[in-house]
Amino acid sequence: MIPLKTLIVIDKTADASIFLQVAEQLRRLINEGLLPAGQKLPGTRQLAELLQLHRKTVIAAYDELLAEGWLETRAGSGTYVATHLPLVRPQFIGKEVDSESVSEQPGFTFTPKLHLIRPLLLMADGLRLDDGFPDIRLAPMDELARAYRSYFRWGNPQQHFGYGDPKGNRLLREELSVFLNETRALRTTADNILISRGSMMGIYLTSSTILKPGDVAVVGETNWSGANMNFQQAGAELLTIPVDQHGIDVEALAVICERRPVRLVYVTPHHHYPTTVTLPPDRRLRLLQLSRQHGFVILEDDYDYEFHYLRRPILPLASADPHRMVIYIGSLSKSVAPAFRIGYVVAPETVIDEMARLRRIMDRQGDSMLEFAVGQLFRNGDMRRHLKKAHQTYAARCAHFCSLVTNELSDGVQFSQPEGGLAVWATFAPEINLVELAQKAKTAGLMLSDGVAHNPPGKWLNSTRLGFASSTESELEQSVAILRKLTRG
Amino acid sequence: MIPLKTLIVIDKTADASIFLQVAEQLRRLINEGLLPAGQKLPGTRQLAELLQLHRKTVIAAYDELLAEGWLETRAGSGTYVATHLPLVRPQFIGKEVDSESVSEQPGFTFTPKLHLIRPLLLMADGLRLDDGFPDIRLAPMDELARAYRSYFRWGNPQQHFGYGDPKGNRLLREELSVFLNETRALRTTADNILISRGSMMGIYLTSSTILKPGDVAVVGETNWSGANMNFQQAGAELLTIPVDQHGIDVEALAVICERRPVRLVYVTPHHHYPTTVTLPPDRRLRLLQLSRQHGFVILEDDYDYEFHYLRRPILPLASADPHRMVIYIGSLSKSVAPAFRIGYVVAPETVIDEMARLRRIMDRQGDSMLEFAVGQLFRNGDMRRHLKKAHQTYAARCAHFCSLVTNELSDGVQFSQPEGGLAVWATFAPEINLVELAQKAKTAGLMLSDGVAHNPPGKWLNSTRLGFASSTESELEQSVAILRKLTRG
Repeated sequence: MIPLKTLIVIDKTADASIFLQVAEQLRRLINEGLLPAGQKLPGTRQLAELLQLHRKTVIAAYDELLAEGWLETRAGSGTYVATHLPLVRPQFIGKEVDSESVSEQPGFTFTPKLHLIRPLLLMADGLRLDDGFPDIRLAPMDELARAYRSYFRWGNPQQHFGYGDPKGNRLLREELSVFLNETRALRTTADNILISRGSMMGIYLTSSTILKPGDVAVVGETNWSGANMNFQQAGAELLTIPVDQHGIDVEALAVICERRPVRLVYVTPHHHYPTTVTLPPDRRLRLLQLSRQHGFVILEDDYDYEFHYLRRPILPLASADPHRMVIYIGSLSKSVAPAFRIGYVVAPETVIDEMARLRRIMDRQGDSMLEFAVGQLFRNGDMRRHLKKAHQTYAARCAHFCSLVTNELSDGVQFSQPEGGLAVWATFAPEINLVELAQKAKTAGLMLSDGVAHNPPGKWLNSTRLGFASSTESELEQSVAILRKLTRG
Repeated sequence: MIPLKTLIVIDKTADASIFLQVAEQLRRLINEGLLPAGQKLPGTRQLAELLQLHRKTVIAAYDELLAEGWLETRAGSGTYVATHLPLVRPQFIGKEVDSESVSEQPGFTFTPKLHLIRPLLLMADGLRLDDGFPDIRLAPMDELARAYRSYFRWGNPQQHFGYGDPKGNRLLREELSVFLNETRALRTTADNILISRGSMMGIYLTSSTILKPGDVAVVGETNWSGANMNFQQAGAELLTIPVDQHGIDVEALAVICERRPVRLVYVTPHHHYPTTVTLPPDRRLRLLQLSRQHGFVILEDDYDYEFHYLRRPILPLASADPHRMVIYIGSLSKSVAPAFRIGYVVAPETVIDEMARLRRIMDRQGDSMLEFAVGQLFRNGDMRRHLKKAHQTYAARCAHFCSLVTNELSDGVQFSQPEGGLAVWATFAPEINLVELAQKAKTAGLMLSDGVAHNPPGKWLNSTRLGFASSTESELEQSVAILRKLTRG
């Protein structure tokens, strides 16, 4: 028997009745397991002596706990802790535990992963030169709202709001297949497509399905940190190859392939992230050839294929891949709005099936309503009309922004006009510190990325992406005027 | 120089002009890298001789490729493959590659994970005794549709359709915090909550954040296969403890803890999945005590807390956890509709922050519209009204179904009336083979799970879950009548 005399402490100056204090502390001892189920308790006379209380007080405490089901009496034998305890009551009714400390740290050991720690860039109101986000004001909101309404009103709720296919809505997969085959010369069917929640999930599924710890993944330097984090999360070793004015240096990859087995190469050939340059056809062919020769997977992230202004867009690697070495991912988040988390993975069916099995234990399935709504917009032509309108608008904004930067900021900023995409890659003069500039810009009402996320380990590029697509031409003029003022000091 | 005479094959009977055939095949050789960029080509006279064609035909082919940018001439030197190739054209315009074979198998090596392969149970039209799904006909669709409409019409699109917090909509997190504190005696703030896409994602995030390969995870035998798959995916070793009429055998866990370091214990204490039994308070306290003593994480999956009929629900383990050993997850998918993928994880803030960082590279964020809509329904009371209505309906269906099974199926089916939840755990007599029965039932228009997913490795339980919640009382009568007919054979 535990030393009840020591463990039950009565505060005779407290507001609470003494019998309630005794009951509360016995409850706590039971809760903590110090008085286990079935344990016989001392008689009321004995406990009263131990605690130096009146016997009636102890009887009242026992009666309270008997009524609540914490104790039970056995005829002729005495009082016991109940074999099956009643409802567990929260222990924190008093002031014992500091509420704030409870909420912060766990009781178990736990190590955060360093590679996941990165600043989070949210979208801002007001003026912005962002990472290359779309202008949400152009999104086909009325059309989407209409499609949502029709889904809510539609026939069979079991079909529409029940469990669905982890690969995504069939209508959307069929429509996307037609769209990708027509516009990007892929040769896919609905069975080669998994609808993901943005291109991020496509990269996550690919990493988890293809990479195992210790595998080598090759990326350009510099590359999108979101992709790098995914490969590291899967346990891969990241090797880098240089990025020049034509994109990744494929010959440097060839050198690595001679020395190490490479499992995956990540590319954004249409507009390299973050530097926006387009990988020319000869490098593409060499990359495909190396892939076939060395057996590595090409993960082609075609995140903003829609938006190419200066020339005809170059078809994806995946369109010239009879040997099926390419996993192709794309996104509508950049074409419509980030909150519409619709992306897709295109791959051979066995790979798609495996991704669907993994996805099933991640979030079971995508968003049925959104997938249906976007499928409708493809079917009735609204999506193509939207993309055409957005293309024209962004092309004009790109040209306008580039001439503004040339005319107003040429002292402080170096850049090449991108062939497409939603941002300009700008390198600032050494005397302009981008971190300071971003802070000053924020004070002046302009959101600007400080570019730190683009720096490779140990290198300071003093470069950032200036997203022009989400601002009107007049907003771009105001933003450039602020930058001009701040960079001329 | 490669042997062009062998590699270029002309079909003089084909529809396509011969000069186009020559051009097409040269393009293919360039695409395949056999004619590399910068390679000098034979003169037109020489190639015409090689291929036994008229020289004008070869000139026309060269002209075509020069116009397309595949070839270039250098003054006084001849014709070369262009240094920078033009747009890559899809290679499959002809009939070279069989489209079906392309779509099935990748060119790279690839091994599917065995632990992910499980049959997928979809929701059916018509009569069903499912796994324990909610009745979608009861869901507050009009209220949700109204909340969606208001979101589409609402003010600032950057805020509403841009990038948001990976932890989820603030309104919903605040409302959920109040709801959980009131109804389940948790003591949480919005900062302790991450909105996941169903409880599945809560388990995935916990597994990926807490488990590393080789860690021991303990589950009941039998347990939900979706949870088991998640722990295996994270590389954990699964150890099992028996499940009896009171739930998991906590003393068997104590024995394991003496022998092996245990990292995580998964429990569904409110209604054990699949057997529906409720873990009594004494076992809960012992589990918490073991957790504190041995330092393991308790993952408490409270997937259908709302629905408890026979007694007052027992508060979650997480409500009696001052030492913060519990990660608590719940879901609205079972309370509203599976397609509304809203779940939540409640944990100390540092753990929630880590999960948010991981979630950010998985799908970036949840569904902004749905999270907002559900937050609104909590705020204006619609959600509580819905839950109350659903509770009453399911309690009546549970009682009705249990008396139907007792009266009509007592020869063939053993079960105990569950205290709550959306399904009955039924064990069929040995002479009734559940797999055959499920097939016959399907033919007779009744969807019934064959229970195979619940069998531990090497064991045949001949048991399944009979979900009563998604059927009206009249539908339940029809379903039981079909079973009665089939089991009396």
